[in-house]
Amino acid sequence: MELDEIKNILIIGSGVMGSQIGLLCSIHEYNVTLYDNSQKSQGESKEKLIKYTEELIDSKRISEQQAQEALTRVKYTTNPEEAGFDSDLMSESLPENPKLKCEVFSQFKEICPPHTIFTTNSSTLLPSMLAAATGRVQQFAALHFHPLVWENNLVEIMPHPKTDYGVVSLLKEFAESIEQIPIILEKEYQSYVFNTMLNALNSAALELASNSVASVEDIDRAWMKTTNMKIGPFGVLDKIGLDVISNVTDYWAKVLGKRQLRTNAKFVKRYVDKGRLGCKSGKGFYEYPNPKFEYTNFFSIPKK
Amino acid sequence: MELDEIKNILIIGSGVMGSQIGLLCSIHEYNVTLYDNSQKSQGESKEKLIKYTEELIDSKRISEQQAQEALTRVKYTTNPEEAGFDSDLMSESLPENPKLKCEVFSQFKEICPPHTIFTTNSSTLLPSMLAAATGRVQQFAALHFHPLVWENNLVEIMPHPKTDYGVVSLLKEFAESIEQIPIILEKEYQSYVFNTMLNALNSAALELASNSVASVEDIDRAWMKTTNMKIGPFGVLDKIGLDVISNVTDYWAKVLGKRQLRTNAKFVKRYVDKGRLGCKSGKGFYEYPNPKFEYTNFFSIPKK
Repeated sequence: MELDEIKNILIIGSGVMGSQIGLLCSIHEYNVTLYDNSQKSQGESKEKLIKYTEELIDSKRISEQQAQEALTRVKYTTNPEEAGFDSDLMSESLPENPKLKCEVFSQFKEICPPHTIFTTNSSTLLPSMLAAATGRVQQFAALHFHPLVWENNLVEIMPHPKTDYGVVSLLKEFAESIEQIPIILEKEYQSYVFNTMLNALNSAALELASNSVASVEDIDRAWMKTTNMKIGPFGVLDKIGLDVISNVTDYWAKVLGKRQLRTNAKFVKRYVDKGRLGCKSGKGFYEYPNPKFEYTNFFSIPKK
Repeated sequence: MELDEIKNILIIGSGVMGSQIGLLCSIHEYNVTLYDNSQKSQGESKEKLIKYTEELIDSKRISEQQAQEALTRVKYTTNPEEAGFDSDLMSESLPENPKLKCEVFSQFKEICPPHTIFTTNSSTLLPSMLAAATGRVQQFAALHFHPLVWENNLVEIMPHPKTDYGVVSLLKEFAESIEQIPIILEKEYQSYVFNTMLNALNSAALELASNSVASVEDIDRAWMKTTNMKIGPFGVLDKIGLDVISNVTDYWAKVLGKRQLRTNAKFVKRYVDKGRLGCKSGKGFYEYPNPKFEYTNFFSIPKK
């Protein structure tokens, strides 16, 4: 298949990521079908799309006319047949549940035409864990986006050992056609390129805090001051959600048998137990909506 | 001792860091003595100070008059007695050789007045390894700067278990008086706060490259694009020097018995063996003076 044969994009799952990916494709003149078995989720997705297009107009990334046209190119359905029958490329953004993902892939492998390329946006599951369910192992890879997709316009393409090389090349061209910078992983790996580095940084920050080497704020301050980043590791952890971090860290501590990871998990759990889940609960390592690291005086030096 | 009793700063070692710290102190109206036993090194340091002050004037950080005054407040000597007899605070920036550092501390403990606070700018040695040689264990801690000190104005204060709490507080005030943001380590630790995180990030990047998951450029691209940093891990490694990275990584691989670290060390060694030592040799992971990651098209997407 050539890039100009890709016209119809099927998005499975109309949550935050599915909605963003769908809108991005439609802005770049693809026909988009957003499938979700929940009408409620679809309703919320429609509202998200309106909010996103308003923000994109405000920031002058698209014109009002482009926004209008993009919205008319997005179709919603809860009917799998209607969603899949004419799709050329599918992007799946369901919850990180391998059983659920496999069930949905198995359902759509019967509905979608044989040429449809299947992709997953999963952050934690390897494509080889899902490939068999797609009924087209060579036409399947991970195509992993970063929110907000029009700002962090980086996608990572992770093949599994049986993915066709041509499919990887085509996904690279497709990514570029929706103004994403493609990073091709040369092999299936336990984690994406960016996430591997981010996790290492976050683990080191948690190691420092959980061993009482320095305070959460000082650790973020040291990182932000020296790198000019607008957010430090603990700000990032608050964004991801401390319940998620606590569970994932605890899982890896057990799998890898690493004592420091267990210490990190326990440290985060103490916040979770107090209801401090990060941004979503209004409190985590920082308090929101105005966390200290955004204060203008976060780096100021007291004058004598 | 109170902050206003600190007037005379003794800098031991007139290399890059000693020169920068000395100039910074003199800009903030301290009297500075730069001690080095090499006249050649002192001559180079004088040239550095002139270059730095010109840059600081150009960037409007200081006026010409301030620069002139700062330069007159810096005294050079190769005579230890002349260097140390009236010092209130010493900052040591000798090569990372514990024997050498201890010898010099032992020499100056006899010369400096009893009230002089001793500090080390060592990046890799723990203050407790050097404390006994200072003859004043309670008045000794690490005070660790980041080059360029007037841009990356972050210092980390690392006490050892016997450092007086009052000395830590005084060093914090001193750091603020020279416009540095102080990060206090609550205990002695194997590495500084910023370095712990930077090393974790760099190790993760090397892990990805040495396992052929993605290319050096794609790994930097993924990091820089998502964080908005102007340099990625491999650019940073080139700055540090690949010979240094190869040796240090190999050392830790042996100490910790970690196979991935050994793989990382071997990966870097292949560059070193080809004479690619990083910025200083003109070639490392990138080629200098115009490395690809500074190209305007490093993130551009090809148009069809």
